[in-house]
Amino acid sequence: MLDSKALDAIFRAARTHNAFSGTVDDARLRELYELMKWGPTTMNTQPGRIVFVRTKEGKEKLRPALSPGNLDKTMAAPVTAILAYDLQFYENLPRTFPHRPDAIKGFQGEEKKVANEKVAFRNASLQGAYFIVAARALDLDTGPMSGFDNAKVDAAFFPDGLWKSNFLCNLGKGDPAKIFARSPRLTFEEACRLA
Amino acid sequence: MLDSKALDAIFRAARTHNAFSGTVDDARLRELYELMKWGPTTMNTQPGRIVFVRTKEGKEKLRPALSPGNLDKTMAAPVTAILAYDLQFYENLPRTFPHRPDAIKGFQGEEKKVANEKVAFRNASLQGAYFIVAARALDLDTGPMSGFDNAKVDAAFFPDGLWKSNFLCNLGKGDPAKIFARSPRLTFEEACRLA
Repeated sequence: MLDSKALDAIFRAARTHNAFSGTVDDARLRELYELMKWGPTTMNTQPGRIVFVRTKEGKEKLRPALSPGNLDKTMAAPVTAILAYDLQFYENLPRTFPHRPDAIKGFQGEEKKVANEKVAFRNASLQGAYFIVAARALDLDTGPMSGFDNAKVDAAFFPDGLWKSNFLCNLGKGDPAKIFARSPRLTFEEACRLA
Repeated sequence: MLDSKALDAIFRAARTHNAFSGTVDDARLRELYELMKWGPTTMNTQPGRIVFVRTKEGKEKLRPALSPGNLDKTMAAPVTAILAYDLQFYENLPRTFPHRPDAIKGFQGEEKKVANEKVAFRNASLQGAYFIVAARALDLDTGPMSGFDNAKVDAAFFPDGLWKSNFLCNLGKGDPAKIFARSPRLTFEEACRLA
């Protein structure tokens, strides 16, 4: 079992941050991916994709898509990750799910598109959560955000239409003075049932 | 930063298990929820719901929905969690997102149903990943599964239609002898871009 300090770092004391400073070099982003990649996905599909936006040019490309409340903090953050998913994720299955070489067939064909997008969205969201936890485990503060225009991000970053944005996440050293009061969580009785 | 042993426990050495033994008492399930509940969700919406199936009666209710490959291991596992989501999650917002008391209005009305279900599905999937990581952090082995009939689970466990099943996850002490060889992960270059 993880010790109390580790449980605090990834869940109990970790907070969503609103102001970021510091630098996050590319080696650290690679380290983050190399940790989060181990989280499980359906049939090892791994549909999650990430664009790490960390240049002035990249941030300007992101700017028009940001909601007013997320604008300044995102432009100022050392890195903003676009958590996305690849609609053709299943093309990798012959290599990534080798014990069932024909698994790819279950995803091929126009009529599978809607079901495939659901697999991609669910599993890329799982991977988005692995990303948040892995970042915290590596002492990177996170600021995940849904407040942006997905269509604008997709048009600017994924013009070929193959990747779709899911959510954004700022990364860096968070300023504890700029955190909101922690909002309450549902009780066990509200969220869980025993059967 | 978490130490190497902790990183192994939640990501690098953790595996999806196929055979479970041991007992998992209700206090442990509560401990698991009390840890995973801290993971962030959009506007603190917390749409994720969990049914912990651990009685003979509950398992029999689940049986008809299980795919052949998941049947025996699930019936034998000490606990099978149904990771679900609540379509009326937004009813809690006045209490769970107190710094914007009118946030609930953005989710009310027939015309919001499709968008609401997307918010529920994304965030319940994030919470499903928090569940997996939190279980591992507490020394519970996990076996997440998508191979089942969601409609049958929903009809059996959520007849009022308000909760929807997302995925299942067995819990217990995993048997390391019954694990598949680890399937490859995408490289940083395949899954990530720098901008």
